[in-house]
Amino acid sequence: MVPFVSVDDMMKIVNSIGLSKVIAGIASYIESDFKRWTEFDKKPRIATHSDEGVIELMPTSDGKTYGFKYVNGHPANINRGFQTVTAFGLLARVDNGYPILLSEMTILTALRTAATSAVAAKYLAPKKSKTMTLIGNGSQCEFQAIAFQEILGINHVRLFDIDSNATSKAAQNLATTNLDIDICTSAQQAVQGADIITTCTADKQYATILTDNMVGSGLHINAIGGDCPGKTEIHKDILLRSEIFVEYSPQTRIEGEIQQLEAEHPVTELWQVMTGIADGRKDDRQITLFDSVGFATEDFSSLRYVYDRLNETGNYQELDMIADPDDPRDLFGMLQRSKNASK
Amino acid sequence: MVPFVSVDDMMKIVNSIGLSKVIAGIASYIESDFKRWTEFDKKPRIATHSDEGVIELMPTSDGKTYGFKYVNGHPANINRGFQTVTAFGLLARVDNGYPILLSEMTILTALRTAATSAVAAKYLAPKKSKTMTLIGNGSQCEFQAIAFQEILGINHVRLFDIDSNATSKAAQNLATTNLDIDICTSAQQAVQGADIITTCTADKQYATILTDNMVGSGLHINAIGGDCPGKTEIHKDILLRSEIFVEYSPQTRIEGEIQQLEAEHPVTELWQVMTGIADGRKDDRQITLFDSVGFATEDFSSLRYVYDRLNETGNYQELDMIADPDDPRDLFGMLQRSKNASK
Repeated sequence: MVPFVSVDDMMKIVNSIGLSKVIAGIASYIESDFKRWTEFDKKPRIATHSDEGVIELMPTSDGKTYGFKYVNGHPANINRGFQTVTAFGLLARVDNGYPILLSEMTILTALRTAATSAVAAKYLAPKKSKTMTLIGNGSQCEFQAIAFQEILGINHVRLFDIDSNATSKAAQNLATTNLDIDICTSAQQAVQGADIITTCTADKQYATILTDNMVGSGLHINAIGGDCPGKTEIHKDILLRSEIFVEYSPQTRIEGEIQQLEAEHPVTELWQVMTGIADGRKDDRQITLFDSVGFATEDFSSLRYVYDRLNETGNYQELDMIADPDDPRDLFGMLQRSKNASK
Repeated sequence: MVPFVSVDDMMKIVNSIGLSKVIAGIASYIESDFKRWTEFDKKPRIATHSDEGVIELMPTSDGKTYGFKYVNGHPANINRGFQTVTAFGLLARVDNGYPILLSEMTILTALRTAATSAVAAKYLAPKKSKTMTLIGNGSQCEFQAIAFQEILGINHVRLFDIDSNATSKAAQNLATTNLDIDICTSAQQAVQGADIITTCTADKQYATILTDNMVGSGLHINAIGGDCPGKTEIHKDILLRSEIFVEYSPQTRIEGEIQQLEAEHPVTELWQVMTGIADGRKDDRQITLFDSVGFATEDFSSLRYVYDRLNETGNYQELDMIADPDDPRDLFGMLQRSKNASK
């Protein structure tokens, strides 16, 4: 039997522990796993593209536990009443290959994406950042706000989306937090006074959410919407002025903002900053840019977090997913006995 | 909600329809999908190796439906009371990325492996084959016997395993079929009189189940146990005397018996034979060898078979796997409302 965390279970887990606390918990798992980066089996995710979107498998292993996530990205879904991104994931024992957890990951991916952004910003954003601009106010937006409030101490968010309904939704959802909220009517307006700019739009195409003249010095840019080939958000000139940080460069070269740059353009992997091998932010005038596409270890970390909460929360069901014959060589006999038993 | 076919559901489906009929049904799906080979997105499976075994993801898509299988292979499991191979799989809609079926695949993999072997043999084995030797009498053995009885008209099997308990188990399981069964005490003895030799052993190492002197002309060899790097069953000299057929050559070069040969050694892909592009068996004296490692389309076909039986059998449960907020941009709001509802 494999423990299964349904969507309803996940909501109960998050709501019983508290959203901010869950994001902070996931962030700490992500950070500790980034710090043992070299232990992980890493490969770019395996993407199956179609005209409408992409379906991806994201496996990794730390030698003891294996994990993977199934995730889709279909920008047109939003106008058809479906989620742009849905996901589920699994952990298994490396020593015998048996699954130990199956979990919904639509909600969990939203949480881990926000947690990863905040963990990166802890190392890269200007000290005492207080104001974050959020361009793109879809599913991910509020989780980013909560994560940065909890982990960085942000107290002010400025919202903009080309769809003002999305901005209204986000503002309303965040009304019960202690965040000051500005509703903006253009990206240009939204970035004014920002210490951190987060871009999280979902078009599957080259787009330019931020142009060079909009971005002053000393900022941190958290670019999370450009995450597949042909999909970017940031003008190339901004990239050229920035110190660029990535999760796993072989994957980010394919999927991230840096698709726009030469393959040799220098980037720093986040784990190198976290372990002190490389510098993070060096001075107050530097633009740091986290070109985030999402990496398998982040899903692994968030599944580990959920797995470690199973006993405490009890929010899961047992799934009859793995055949368990008395004699492991006798699958056929198991079938026969089941037939006889049901007669 | 996603339909989930548990192990118990799968046994009920198989037993209500009948094992032979299910294998024949899966075989027809496999054959029809092989015949539209060029429609499929194909890649070698993504393997994560460890000292104890391997965990693999096997994705494919026909442009309309996406499928993947999670499968492990841990030869030492058998002595620890676990299955060597366990698996589960999924189908999803390509147009929106939403899963439409989650299913156990430990049993289903056993059925599809046998079905694939029999489909291949239909094109490659000597006409009027009646006797099959089965070397390796583990989980896969009986399914092979049933598949070849049903699809090729085999009426006689000769069993051998280095573990005589495995052979006894297989002989006992097959006692209720109309197959004549010979229990053999050596591989050499087992191959006598065979039209078809099936090797399905599980050691994760180079092994030589069949040596050159054991194999006469005019046979079909169905080699299904060599299926990962460093794991083979057939002596190289037999390969050099045989016409070799494979599922998907980029994967088989890595995992199959042909790892032992030069990368340019000519092989024929099975779909080419099925569609008439290439010849199958050319004469009575030829040795044909199906170097089978299992390919993603076979899992896809077998999942399609199960999916098409859901309404007829009713053996599934609905799984709350995909978050479904009223407003697809409002995952945060869904979480909040769930919190308020449970107060």
